[in-house]
Amino acid sequence: MKSRVQYQGDFRWAGIYRLAYKPEDRSHFDRISRQTLFAGLADFDCDLRYFDLKPDGYSTFERHQYVHCVVIIRGPGQCVVGQTISDLEPFDIINIPAMTWRQFRANRDDHLGFLCWVKYDRDRPSRPTETQLQEIRANPYVAQFMRI
Amino acid sequence: MKSRVQYQGDFRWAGIYRLAYKPEDRSHFDRISRQTLFAGLADFDCDLRYFDLKPDGYSTFERHQYVHCVVIIRGPGQCVVGQTISDLEPFDIINIPAMTWRQFRANRDDHLGFLCWVKYDRDRPSRPTETQLQEIRANPYVAQFMRI
Repeated sequence: MKSRVQYQGDFRWAGIYRLAYKPEDRSHFDRISRQTLFAGLADFDCDLRYFDLKPDGYSTFERHQYVHCVVIIRGPGQCVVGQTISDLEPFDIINIPAMTWRQFRANRDDHLGFLCWVKYDRDRPSRPTETQLQEIRANPYVAQFMRI
Repeated sequence: MKSRVQYQGDFRWAGIYRLAYKPEDRSHFDRISRQTLFAGLADFDCDLRYFDLKPDGYSTFERHQYVHCVVIIRGPGQCVVGQTISDLEPFDIINIPAMTWRQFRANRDDHLGFLCWVKYDRDRPSRPTETQLQEIRANPYVAQFMRI
């Protein structure tokens, strides 16, 4: 791990590999890329990632056991966490409790980008079953917001 | 912990207490304030803090056992980590290994602000002894940069 990871502009960092934006395919995630800025070490067991959503992109609608915290650095956009839909602007902070459905959307004609710290050892996210989807869609605001 | 911590502009967040800037007193730290944006939980044992240094401010020259990672969000400024002095611009990332002397300085006529993730359980930082100071000052660049 280099002691300094230099920002190069346009939300890219020197020497950091960026996973390709997934092409528009109406999958469960869309137009989102990832860069890992800090990889977990034995004595600091966390990863720092930067996610960037192109306009109209969205992250997977999912949940997991691990708690995490997101700092928006590019926007605006919106997210849903549980039953709550929030507007997002740069430097807003979103805390995501365990086992809470959430999704980020770049639905404001701009990129949405955020830093996301997670534990190195973490469970894999799960997507809703058909039964869970029916429950989630009982909230019409969430039903309208979500992209599956 | 609120699910959303809204940014209010001017590097302040809604509902977050800011520790006062220390008055200029030529102590071991100077003109620096702290806001805790995410407080460690049982299932995510990290704290996220925002530190802001007023122009000419500096953090304590210190080291500790725990590794941590800093994301600059306001600048420019400079830091020393070990023997390396680096220019800092917003979104640069600084990784600080265990037991490595470091100090941040707002020495570019502007505020320097950074996000800092640390483990909830961590050792207290230590400052150099007189003997250690002599060793550190053997590097003339570091000797000139540091503020004690």
